[in-house]
Amino acid sequence: MDQRISFVSIATADLAASRRFYVEGLGWEPALDVPGEVVMLGAGERLVLSLWDRAAFEAEVGESTVSGPGVLPFSLAHNVETPALVDEVLGLAASAGAQVRLAADRAWGGYTGYFADPDGVRWEVAWNPGPIGLQVVPGTDTTPRV
Amino acid sequence: MDQRISFVSIATADLAASRRFYVEGLGWEPALDVPGEVVMLGAGERLVLSLWDRAAFEAEVGESTVSGPGVLPFSLAHNVETPALVDEVLGLAASAGAQVRLAADRAWGGYTGYFADPDGVRWEVAWNPGPIGLQVVPGTDTTPRV
Repeated sequence: MDQRISFVSIATADLAASRRFYVEGLGWEPALDVPGEVVMLGAGERLVLSLWDRAAFEAEVGESTVSGPGVLPFSLAHNVETPALVDEVLGLAASAGAQVRLAADRAWGGYTGYFADPDGVRWEVAWNPGPIGLQVVPGTDTTPRV
Repeated sequence: MDQRISFVSIATADLAASRRFYVEGLGWEPALDVPGEVVMLGAGERLVLSLWDRAAFEAEVGESTVSGPGVLPFSLAHNVETPALVDEVLGLAASAGAQVRLAADRAWGGYTGYFADPDGVRWEVAWNPGPIGLQVVPGTDTTPRV
């Protein structure tokens, strides 16, 4: 497993307010801007800050992994080059004692799963063949999945 | 303000358990390893994942900014090249409506303050003249402060 954070994602209570703060207030420029759903902002070399509408985030991640006691409304992501690497990293996390949610194909075309670190910080492990997903990994297999 | 996350910091409940998970479990290599206090791990180009002992983190950040209802045990950091830029970014955040904790000189030689985004996600704005602090900014003024 490479040492790499690809996304920092925040499940916002009010996406419009968060967007206003980062984009109009701090002057950050969105790389992706889908009203009511998500705003993504470059935050470094191969690093993206993702502001999600909380409901849209929960629809993707699953409610129980986003809210509730001890669950933080944010996650880190580790993006990898191939779907097989998603399973490999999740297996590594499981063998290190992490709670793992096995990867699944996502409606948007990716393949992602989750693990939680000892403090309950959730990590998404993702193969994301979309344009922003491709930007965050060093080298990506762009071959369509069979 | 540049679009840049420099540190992702987690205030761990049990630093030894977190260290074991990331270092022995996932195989990540520490860039700094101070038992009972902090473990820092490279997480990308100019990006560091910081695992803090919660008490050490609170001693630095201030208890009220780390725990309590609605306060998350983690923070993001935006590192800048000079102390003056710390004040400038905090001023920008204040004018964007953020709650700001003004910057102060720190015992370890840096100059740091905080703001909170609309969801209460805390951002440290830091001038850090130490070796790891220098690594995360594009160009650093290494002139000693007067």
